[in-house]
Amino acid sequence: MKTVGIVGANGYTGSELVRLLAYHPNVELGFLYSRSNAGTKISEIYADLEMVCDIELTNEISAVDIVFLCLPHRESKNWLSQNSVSENTLVIDLGNDFRLDGKSLDRNFIYGLPEINKSDIAQAKSIANPGCFATAIQLALMPLANKGLLDEVYTTGITGSTGAGQSLQATTHFTWRNDNVSAYKTLTHQHVDEILQQVISLNNKEVSLNFVPWRGDFARGIFTSSTIKTDLELTDINQLYKDFYAEAPFVKVSDRAIDLKQVVNTNRCVIHVEKNGNVIVIHSAIDNLLKGASGQAVQNMNIAMGWEENLGLDLKPIAF
Amino acid sequence: MKTVGIVGANGYTGSELVRLLAYHPNVELGFLYSRSNAGTKISEIYADLEMVCDIELTNEISAVDIVFLCLPHRESKNWLSQNSVSENTLVIDLGNDFRLDGKSLDRNFIYGLPEINKSDIAQAKSIANPGCFATAIQLALMPLANKGLLDEVYTTGITGSTGAGQSLQATTHFTWRNDNVSAYKTLTHQHVDEILQQVISLNNKEVSLNFVPWRGDFARGIFTSSTIKTDLELTDINQLYKDFYAEAPFVKVSDRAIDLKQVVNTNRCVIHVEKNGNVIVIHSAIDNLLKGASGQAVQNMNIAMGWEENLGLDLKPIAF
Amino acid sequence: MKTVGIVGANGYTGSELVRLLAYHPNVELGFLYSRSNAGTKISEIYADLEMVCDIELTNEISAVDIVFLCLPHRESKNWLSQNSVSENTLVIDLGNDFRLDGKSLDRNFIYGLPEINKSDIAQAKSIANPGCFATAIQLALMPLANKGLLDEVYTTGITGSTGAGQSLQATTHFTWRNDNVSAYKTLTHQHVDEILQQVISLNNKEVSLNFVPWRGDFARGIFTSSTIKTDLELTDINQLYKDFYAEAPFVKVSDRAIDLKQVVNTNRCVIHVEKNGNVIVIHSAIDNLLKGASGQAVQNMNIAMGWEENLGLDLKPIAF
Amino acid sequence: MKTVGIVGANGYTGSELVRLLAYHPNVELGFLYSRSNAGTKISEIYADLEMVCDIELTNEISAVDIVFLCLPHRESKNWLSQNSVSENTLVIDLGNDFRLDGKSLDRNFIYGLPEINKSDIAQAKSIANPGCFATAIQLALMPLANKGLLDEVYTTGITGSTGAGQSLQATTHFTWRNDNVSAYKTLTHQHVDEILQQVISLNNKEVSLNFVPWRGDFARGIFTSSTIKTDLELTDINQLYKDFYAEAPFVKVSDRAIDLKQVVNTNRCVIHVEKNGNVIVIHSAIDNLLKGASGQAVQNMNIAMGWEENLGLDLKPIAF
Repeated sequence: MKTVGIVGANGYTGSELVRLLAYHPNVELGFLYSRSNAGTKISEIYADLEMVCDIELTNEISAVDIVFLCLPHRESKNWLSQNSVSENTLVIDLGNDFRLDGKSLDRNFIYGLPEINKSDIAQAKSIANPGCFATAIQLALMPLANKGLLDEVYTTGITGSTGAGQSLQATTHFTWRNDNVSAYKTLTHQHVDEILQQVISLNNKEVSLNFVPWRGDFARGIFTSSTIKTDLELTDINQLYKDFYAEAPFVKVSDRAIDLKQVVNTNRCVIHVEKNGNVIVIHSAIDNLLKGASGQAVQNMNIAMGWEENLGLDLKPIAF
Repeated sequence: MKTVGIVGANGYTGSELVRLLAYHPNVELGFLYSRSNAGTKISEIYADLEMVCDIELTNEISAVDIVFLCLPHRESKNWLSQNSVSENTLVIDLGNDFRLDGKSLDRNFIYGLPEINKSDIAQAKSIANPGCFATAIQLALMPLANKGLLDEVYTTGITGSTGAGQSLQATTHFTWRNDNVSAYKTLTHQHVDEILQQVISLNNKEVSLNFVPWRGDFARGIFTSSTIKTDLELTDINQLYKDFYAEAPFVKVSDRAIDLKQVVNTNRCVIHVEKNGNVIVIHSAIDNLLKGASGQAVQNMNIAMGWEENLGLDLKPIAF
Repeated sequence: MKTVGIVGANGYTGSELVRLLAYHPNVELGFLYSRSNAGTKISEIYADLEMVCDIELTNEISAVDIVFLCLPHRESKNWLSQNSVSENTLVIDLGNDFRLDGKSLDRNFIYGLPEINKSDIAQAKSIANPGCFATAIQLALMPLANKGLLDEVYTTGITGSTGAGQSLQATTHFTWRNDNVSAYKTLTHQHVDEILQQVISLNNKEVSLNFVPWRGDFARGIFTSSTIKTDLELTDINQLYKDFYAEAPFVKVSDRAIDLKQVVNTNRCVIHVEKNGNVIVIHSAIDNLLKGASGQAVQNMNIAMGWEENLGLDLKPIAF
Repeated sequence: MKTVGIVGANGYTGSELVRLLAYHPNVELGFLYSRSNAGTKISEIYADLEMVCDIELTNEISAVDIVFLCLPHRESKNWLSQNSVSENTLVIDLGNDFRLDGKSLDRNFIYGLPEINKSDIAQAKSIANPGCFATAIQLALMPLANKGLLDEVYTTGITGSTGAGQSLQATTHFTWRNDNVSAYKTLTHQHVDEILQQVISLNNKEVSLNFVPWRGDFARGIFTSSTIKTDLELTDINQLYKDFYAEAPFVKVSDRAIDLKQVVNTNRCVIHVEKNGNVIVIHSAIDNLLKGASGQAVQNMNIAMGWEENLGLDLKPIAF
């Protein structure tokens, strides 16, 4: 039994880790760290945890085998530099502090997209967990990048409200968001750099990614469609995708049309490719809090600890 | 490893059993029976099952240890009389054929509400799984019935669209149901008889239940509020509820306001009692497809097979 | 052309008045008062008003013929005592400051439920606009109260998120509220006193109202079901309702099941009565921002000004 | 007062015309034609019409001044050839039978996008009303096409469930569609030809349109984002858009981010342009049943009859 600490446990991704790890067979929760909510039980913040986890949030850390950082972007580095974490402790950061440049604070963060980096993750003591849109879009593009086939990519993606975190904002007010769709950070989303860094390193030549993110009127999930030009036949493209993900337990390349809800409450990504003329569209869907955040973090932990990749991640889909 | 057959596997409750049993450690799926969809893979009907279960629906049965009947109401008796099921096979019916009168076809169906009937269920070879509203309302009322405190009950309950099944109807059309609320079967819902039969047998005197069911604009869940008069103090009522459910692993009597989504995608029931003057209101919430149907069926199976009650039922809540 | 001032124009009911009055043939907007947003255009707060109304919010008032007060509860009296409004100006308060006791500040506020009080409203210079739940429940109960038939009433009502106003709260966060239902202010909602005062004055004997309000996962609308005992025949009850509302242009007593969305974006109330044994259930539905607030305020203005009751209120239903 | 007949009045767009025309000052409803529902009141099908329109559907036509055809695609031509409509009657077809080739059956259908074709529409006796996606996308592209600036366009659009009509389908089942997003007709949507025909005739050179339509989990509305390359400055583009729509009463080029719900239940289109590097994204939003269908049909009627363009179209936005 390994012990786990979660820093920022009072947020969405932190609490989702609690939900996952409460039933994980190989770990037990050590501390749940929160500066703002120390002294409060996590189940007082998230009522669904009432029968799952009775632990109080704390602002003191103790020695654990694994630490997950679920802090706002740009706060992980601060926290790590101010708190003493053993070099033997596996650190998995769900923020974006170490995704573009993993060498920091005497640690070497490995980019934690298991479908690309599994062998490096298996050796890692520090893992930078990918962003949610970054996961959905990379999984849609990597098989093509791997063959150097990417050039110009046009992607639209839609995300649920949990992507915006638990803070109250005009755009997360129910009255505004219900039945609504809107665009934000058009062409300038912070995940573009992260995606391009990874994609280009496989593609071996420049890629341009024109990404239009939308806010959707649902709580969980990301759906993306990426359009590119290629002369490849659809059957060859599908084969290429299936080969690329042959060993990936959480990625399914589907021959049928996909929909967002088939992956909600799972750690899976489903992908479907369509072609018309010399244009292909690659659709991908994930649960932004699972494969896009906390589920992938557990997957990375499993790999880094030498456990089965899907341990604690055989989740019943919501389905309906 | 015990083998399981699911009759009517192509419906919502049948497919939900597949989702649950696919990860249940003590069983494996034997057959998935469907007359109308024989020859089709269940994952072709429910895309979320693509990576979970690859079994084809069939219209032939084989010998199994446990059979779940997930048929439209009034078809279970027919099916059982036309198909030969060993008397040693545990039969769990999710329909309403045997809830009011369990002695039928040389079998003796035990009413499968574990919080009331656990010892009988443990001995049973035939179990009548309760209805969804019937579960939510009985769990709200039983601690009072157990003390003979029920007289006149006024209940309103709201249910998600999965309660209406997968058939296409005017009232399950997205365009109509989105953002909508409506009443149906006012004072005449079929679960009233089932509830009263159980409640009165504990209450030991007549109870009248005025039940107004509503359709809600969500897919999963039931929320009910029951109003009754009593002179008991609120602290005594809460104690009575907590004592009554002290051994029930899936029922939580909460001191805080509850909300529907805290139980969605779990097998739990949360209950909260409030009082003003001599009037109390008992709120209860369940996931209609889990504690209200397939989850409770697995709970009953676990008890009847002598396994841990929560085996395969430690489900991650959807939470958001 | 009469001039109108709206105090608290930056809130939901205030902005809804702007939407209604922008197309009202007999009035023009004088001032839109807001202390917190003075200097901002109302269309900067509510984007849907971009092509409708270009007026800037102000914290100075000018002479107008009609003033609507759309302030938080208990602030209308303050505002009126601190600002000089001519005694000839028609004042319509959408808050609850004058509903229970209309005689205040040298004014005599008439309770503005036109279906009960039309002749008094026609003479009034000060009108206390009813609450949203209060409107839906009174319209459901008044025909029985009018015959002294009310005794014990059990009501459940569900409201959209606009009922909670525009402030950001945990219970109006999209992530929490989407697909969720919860109870609040059980048996203690502030509208109960307002309802009972009016209902009892018609009923001529005591009435007890056990009201359980729920939060729904939609933005607009209120649906209520009230259960009472009576020996009257259903046909007689229906006749009584139809007679009572024979002259009410916005109330429909329907012979068919009703649903919330049929009144959304209209000033209407639909009512449907069902009976089983000696128990009847009266369902009613309104749009909480229209017949439950701003629409009814315009209806009251029309009556008080001697105009057609439905002027500016022939609104296209959202329907879908 | 002119008389109107609606053919296919029992569908979504037909019933939406009833909602609009019931309050239109210059017309009265003559007949509501429906083969399948003759003898039924339209208010029995659409409960929101109970207090608006009491007319029975009929399968016989009478002489009227204006006929709207709201039939499934490819049935308008049939209906017109089988029914005798005077050549003096204004015919407005909401289907796609005459959009690509308007010369048919001795009539000359003008493509009814008023922002492009107003003078032709003013002279027309036959109008082909544009498709819903076609309206939203053309309004987003036309100012650029008008300057010959279009080359390669990448568009994603999301539509509400009303776009799929009232028939019950797997993809309009509430249980499936709630909280869901999916793609359909990728790169092959039937509106692409219609859009290109119009756009190219302004652009004066080839345009390629890569269009990915999505199904959204809301009932009304279309939101689109179109990405193209250009060296123009953003201020110049905005000026170009504002000039192009200077005389269009229903189109707003907004300097602020737009959202879908600001146009729901209105006949408006809002457009917002953003730029990064040499890439621009044009967002547009409409209500698919109004500016995308029935509202635009009334707008076309107004123009063809010589009335104010916005007559009967000053609709209160749903806003929330």
